[in-house]
Amino acid sequence: MILRDPVHGLVSFERKEEEIIVRLLEAREVQRLRRIRQLGLASFAYPSADHTRFSHAIGAAFVMTRLLERLRHIDPSLPYWQRTTTERAREALAAALLHDVGHGPFSHLFEQVLGGQHHETWTRRMLLDDSTDVHRVLRELDPILPERVAELVAGRHELPYLARAVSGTFDVDRCDYLLRDAHATGVSYGRFDLAWLLRSLTFGVPASEATAPPIAIDGRKGIPAIESFLLARLFMFQQVYFHKTERSCEWMLTKILDRARALLTDGTRLPGTPAGIATLARDGAITLGEYLDLDDPALWVALAAWRNVPDPTLAGLVARLQTRHLFKTYELFGEQATPRGRLDALDVARDVAQKAGFDPEIYVGLDVASTFALDDADDPLTIVFPDGAVRPLAEVSFLLGRLRGENLERVRLVFAPELRDGIKRALKP
Amino acid sequence: MILRDPVHGLVSFERKEEEIIVRLLEAREVQRLRRIRQLGLASFAYPSADHTRFSHAIGAAFVMTRLLERLRHIDPSLPYWQRTTTERAREALAAALLHDVGHGPFSHLFEQVLGGQHHETWTRRMLLDDSTDVHRVLRELDPILPERVAELVAGRHELPYLARAVSGTFDVDRCDYLLRDAHATGVSYGRFDLAWLLRSLTFGVPASEATAPPIAIDGRKGIPAIESFLLARLFMFQQVYFHKTERSCEWMLTKILDRARALLTDGTRLPGTPAGIATLARDGAITLGEYLDLDDPALWVALAAWRNVPDPTLAGLVARLQTRHLFKTYELFGEQATPRGRLDALDVARDVAQKAGFDPEIYVGLDVASTFALDDADDPLTIVFPDGAVRPLAEVSFLLGRLRGENLERVRLVFAPELRDGIKRALKP
Amino acid sequence: MILRDPVHGLVSFERKEEEIIVRLLEAREVQRLRRIRQLGLASFAYPSADHTRFSHAIGAAFVMTRLLERLRHIDPSLPYWQRTTTERAREALAAALLHDVGHGPFSHLFEQVLGGQHHETWTRRMLLDDSTDVHRVLRELDPILPERVAELVAGRHELPYLARAVSGTFDVDRCDYLLRDAHATGVSYGRFDLAWLLRSLTFGVPASEATAPPIAIDGRKGIPAIESFLLARLFMFQQVYFHKTERSCEWMLTKILDRARALLTDGTRLPGTPAGIATLARDGAITLGEYLDLDDPALWVALAAWRNVPDPTLAGLVARLQTRHLFKTYELFGEQATPRGRLDALDVARDVAQKAGFDPEIYVGLDVASTFALDDADDPLTIVFPDGAVRPLAEVSFLLGRLRGENLERVRLVFAPELRDGIKRALKP
Amino acid sequence: MILRDPVHGLVSFERKEEEIIVRLLEAREVQRLRRIRQLGLASFAYPSADHTRFSHAIGAAFVMTRLLERLRHIDPSLPYWQRTTTERAREALAAALLHDVGHGPFSHLFEQVLGGQHHETWTRRMLLDDSTDVHRVLRELDPILPERVAELVAGRHELPYLARAVSGTFDVDRCDYLLRDAHATGVSYGRFDLAWLLRSLTFGVPASEATAPPIAIDGRKGIPAIESFLLARLFMFQQVYFHKTERSCEWMLTKILDRARALLTDGTRLPGTPAGIATLARDGAITLGEYLDLDDPALWVALAAWRNVPDPTLAGLVARLQTRHLFKTYELFGEQATPRGRLDALDVARDVAQKAGFDPEIYVGLDVASTFALDDADDPLTIVFPDGAVRPLAEVSFLLGRLRGENLERVRLVFAPELRDGIKRALKP
Repeated sequence: MILRDPVHGLVSFERKEEEIIVRLLEAREVQRLRRIRQLGLASFAYPSADHTRFSHAIGAAFVMTRLLERLRHIDPSLPYWQRTTTERAREALAAALLHDVGHGPFSHLFEQVLGGQHHETWTRRMLLDDSTDVHRVLRELDPILPERVAELVAGRHELPYLARAVSGTFDVDRCDYLLRDAHATGVSYGRFDLAWLLRSLTFGVPASEATAPPIAIDGRKGIPAIESFLLARLFMFQQVYFHKTERSCEWMLTKILDRARALLTDGTRLPGTPAGIATLARDGAITLGEYLDLDDPALWVALAAWRNVPDPTLAGLVARLQTRHLFKTYELFGEQATPRGRLDALDVARDVAQKAGFDPEIYVGLDVASTFALDDADDPLTIVFPDGAVRPLAEVSFLLGRLRGENLERVRLVFAPELRDGIKRALKP
Repeated sequence: MILRDPVHGLVSFERKEEEIIVRLLEAREVQRLRRIRQLGLASFAYPSADHTRFSHAIGAAFVMTRLLERLRHIDPSLPYWQRTTTERAREALAAALLHDVGHGPFSHLFEQVLGGQHHETWTRRMLLDDSTDVHRVLRELDPILPERVAELVAGRHELPYLARAVSGTFDVDRCDYLLRDAHATGVSYGRFDLAWLLRSLTFGVPASEATAPPIAIDGRKGIPAIESFLLARLFMFQQVYFHKTERSCEWMLTKILDRARALLTDGTRLPGTPAGIATLARDGAITLGEYLDLDDPALWVALAAWRNVPDPTLAGLVARLQTRHLFKTYELFGEQATPRGRLDALDVARDVAQKAGFDPEIYVGLDVASTFALDDADDPLTIVFPDGAVRPLAEVSFLLGRLRGENLERVRLVFAPELRDGIKRALKP
Repeated sequence: MILRDPVHGLVSFERKEEEIIVRLLEAREVQRLRRIRQLGLASFAYPSADHTRFSHAIGAAFVMTRLLERLRHIDPSLPYWQRTTTERAREALAAALLHDVGHGPFSHLFEQVLGGQHHETWTRRMLLDDSTDVHRVLRELDPILPERVAELVAGRHELPYLARAVSGTFDVDRCDYLLRDAHATGVSYGRFDLAWLLRSLTFGVPASEATAPPIAIDGRKGIPAIESFLLARLFMFQQVYFHKTERSCEWMLTKILDRARALLTDGTRLPGTPAGIATLARDGAITLGEYLDLDDPALWVALAAWRNVPDPTLAGLVARLQTRHLFKTYELFGEQATPRGRLDALDVARDVAQKAGFDPEIYVGLDVASTFALDDADDPLTIVFPDGAVRPLAEVSFLLGRLRGENLERVRLVFAPELRDGIKRALKP
Repeated sequence: MILRDPVHGLVSFERKEEEIIVRLLEAREVQRLRRIRQLGLASFAYPSADHTRFSHAIGAAFVMTRLLERLRHIDPSLPYWQRTTTERAREALAAALLHDVGHGPFSHLFEQVLGGQHHETWTRRMLLDDSTDVHRVLRELDPILPERVAELVAGRHELPYLARAVSGTFDVDRCDYLLRDAHATGVSYGRFDLAWLLRSLTFGVPASEATAPPIAIDGRKGIPAIESFLLARLFMFQQVYFHKTERSCEWMLTKILDRARALLTDGTRLPGTPAGIATLARDGAITLGEYLDLDDPALWVALAAWRNVPDPTLAGLVARLQTRHLFKTYELFGEQATPRGRLDALDVARDVAQKAGFDPEIYVGLDVASTFALDDADDPLTIVFPDGAVRPLAEVSFLLGRLRGENLERVRLVFAPELRDGIKRALKP
């Protein structure tokens, strides 16, 4: 199977061990990812960000094929039982393709609001439930494969370097999504040099004599490559994932789902509501079948229907989103951004809402987005030099040494546009 | 308003006359385009082809801003009444943004199958119906604007060069979609040099003394630019729009909609069917509101529901599409591709289906895709030389002179995969 | 050895068989290519076209590594004695790197003017002369290697597919120079999809049972890739290699060298003249050492010196070139471009020069540039279909079928700018 | 005049005020830049880095045209006497084109070694000396223009924002060379988003009421753009300008020129030595004409000649460079890199050389390369927010705040390869 991909160019799965990808692609659960956008509501900020989890899953699997090539180039230095066998390669490929298969519509959001399970849990369930296509395909290849792939997706494997290639500071998921999100949004800062980075991979020092080593970076060639990879991540957070418009849309959708849930719990009939959401709203146990039916189209159709419900709050919020009359944001800096200051600011804003006749629980909120600049505390990347010296990345890199442990945080109030002037006035120092 | 766009980079609508774009973008009918993919089912062939008509509409409007810049650079050579005034620029911008606003889900397909109106008719209706947001925005700016924009979208305007910029051999629609489809699919052959092409535009010879001239190409600098633009179009047809997988998916969806319509006409209840489709199936007059509710999500949700209907044909076709068990194709060449030969081949294939117990009307079909290599018969592009000589493009261009009048045609049988071996055997010479 | 290259990204020569590249790169004759620009005087038309034959040589060798990878992927279908052994790979790599090592300064031009040998002859001589570094490196690896590489550079090898990979319709030289020249000039039309093209290579039908097959194109995936490769070539000829400014500069340099030669033959002393040029002017036998000392800097320094010689013709021509007061061109079309018409036009122009007091042999010329659009007469590319059918490219390709046998020709008069008005007036129909 | 440029695409100088560029391009002193590579010896590390100061000069002038467009968009907010008039635009364009016109061959190196004047001095001299073409062109336009352009090149102008656009933290020189060097070397980290950055420019706070404001960055849109510009600079220093191979080549060339000078001073005849170098060696006053004759070809030809001189040191160093037998480097870290430690290390290395019979002054050296990460101490960039607040870049930027005041330094020993093992052994802790 060969495919054209705008991010990686020519994507091919033609080796014997890559057949697993071709088979899994036909699974209903994987095909479903065609209907779930990678970046949820980001297209409100970046109109071209329409790419789906399906193309990302293929991309991650393809990056894994290239990573495996590199590993095979360097693993003759390991004892034979620590090398990447065909079986292990197959697991790694399946894990790369399926790592996000459990995502619901609008991703992270959905699971927070409706009190459902995390997508990781759903991924595991899809892999292990014998009614799914992915389970069937894996089991047909090897009865232990579903369990092994589920473990690997969760970052557990006897070879640390494979475990971290699926879930680590530098993993195939991140390699693909940074490039793909950059390509789709047009944010050029998210690009980095994947070929050079893969070429720079080497093995680090194993935790003990009994274990295989983790992946590390070759000190002669790889430092700018890994620097630019980690900076690309930081830029994408600043520019895309923490974009104020995206955060505002997410806040609005949260409030829409909250409201729908409350109405459903109260017994109100909401036409167009997908079965899965109705079940969740009743705190019922959503079935796997119901969950699989929840995709972006299901939610868009529900929103379209909810626009005409009698409840003015729900109908109103949906109408705002559909015509892009979005909530506004006000970023807090300095004193106002401290844990204490932000709560004070929220109180002030809620007060404004109250006085203007808006429910402060719905029309005002505090949104805090944060990530670590160099998040390798759990999986510290090391640099290996020609003379055998091994040093932590943050020590060697001029740039990253200055970012280690630093937290990138954006603190904002989110509120209905009608409240903008009042809130700005009230918050002016 | 400034936006990031992966195709054009920095997209801005900041001039006074461009305010019309900013206002129209909030219209419900324009926002709806976020939920209609530009290439329908092409993502079955190119997994990343998820881009929507919304980003294309913005792109076309942006190309119009750049084209207007160029026109203003050269129009001082025209009498003042033939120049691009602010009012005309506004019309052109609105027409560029709204040229496709009437599209239904899965585009061209939809209108063919359900006997509905052409999307051009819907575009006109949306512009002129006083219940729509786009109508309201245009009318508020100028009561005659809805009608003028509708005319311009249809290629009619007192300035031929503006009319053809919206709808012609070289128009802003095509400029954007070739680049955007190339960017999204990864098919590099669709790229051309837009900046150089715009810089090469000049005025040709007016049809009469009373009329303004059409757009033409500057003979000193522009020939390779227009050649590569027209070749890009040809490549995109060969590679993307006529791709066998895409054509097969379209055939399948056609059959699904045909079947659904037949069942609905017979009075069968199909849960999940959008109101608009039900109306169309009854040959009823679909309302504008119903039409606006028809978008890709509505159709995906309908498909999901139809998968579980008792009718095995409908349910079966949907299941095939959802798990990507697509119909196969067999391309006809030479004798078999002639008008006569292709019908004979279809008969043979239908016979195979009949014998194998498959309904030949549904499981076998003949698919003919064709386009002219240089389709400027209606709008012949001319080349203007420094000494004033004007010659047709096909005469001047080494490449295009050899393509003029040539018809690019792909003729294929489409059929259920179960019939592949039988049909291949039966058709082998 | 790994290198960064703006055309291919990460260039590596790390396999055992690629060591030959690393060794040859240190040869004095290869290092000399750093001082010879790939496109001669093209930087007068494209100011960024400063790239050298050195980077092109590396690029061609790198394309060969990728081509060899593809060949090894498909050659298990051949009898073992027709496969790409390590020895043959080494030859192919050396031939790719060294194919242009015999070029003199300003390339083709130089050999025409000074009656020297063709660069192919010099390449052979450098490979076989035991005083050169390249000869020594090759011989150290295997005494027959100099001869085998020389033969392969000339397109002769027991494996036709390797012979044509070094010198054929689709060879590594062309693959690299089209991309590199496009990259350096900014002419985007010269790009094509190398990865996809390599992936599309397969074996064609051998000329006889005893011989290995030539390279062919896979009919399922490769047609647009090879089409766009051949169109890229055509565009580069139209845009770059036949550019009027470049042709005019070449004409001027030709006249400068002619004049210098005449003066030297007459015994005039021209300070700054490189030894090699002096020898050639005396019709003497230039030594290999003298030839190796001829590079672009040697010629530039000579030009700088000649600017101050007493001969006003030579000094004047050099001064024009140095301050970019270039000769003008007048392109002939239609009747005037026919073999007869162009000679008439030349006579007219010479007449104008004569009357204006300019030597018509120097200040007026006829420049004819021509190439075949699809130049595979000697090495016809075939397309192989999955069912085994083999058809000529020109039959299968909609585009190329219409270009086969067509000759792209640009006919121009070249003359001193002082003569422009007179010649234009005299030639106006 | 329109040009193709691989960095900026379509480069045009067509406005009335841009005629100055077209005229200056014909000047002999500007044409000379065709023969001086932008990156000196960097092509030893990056084989494609062959681009010249000529294409960079055009690029810088083009960036100035775009910057002027932006300035005109925002300068209506200034009092009319502080705006960019046509005259000032002309000065700015000329200064952008000519800012580097005084460079000698191999750039910075040359002026250090031969005790010549700085290139800035030569630039000024070329602008003011009435024998040059550039002086004549400027003077013909306006007698005060040579002086005004010379001042502006030196960063002095009545409008601070124009002064800094020619010479500042964010100036057109840097904008072009970062992009151009990245394009030529293939080091992708050097790219940044020029269009977005230009769009983000606004005016800062003037130093006093009487002066015009400096350029500043719009806080809403510009922070990531300026961050990535400054990081691009940092990456290019790390990757290209401080590359060990480049530094080693520069060291070698320095030693070659030192040696040649010493020999010439002693009265030794070195054939092939350009007049300018001979004059410098005699501590004589090099004339402008001699200086203009010094270009890369002159130096290459000299090197070729020096390879055959009787002095074994000079001939040997040249031979090493020509066959790429370069000096090796040993990077010092930690304690060894301190001002004290590096001198100790140098002593150790010299000792090794002495014992091995190599002149330590020539065959061993200490190379320190350093630059500030954010070098805006003299020209602090400020960020202007919508509410009028103005804050220093380093305060607002998460990234740059952590780099301010930090010094990027690479400390290395450079030595003949024969000394490698000995020096490594001697320095091992």
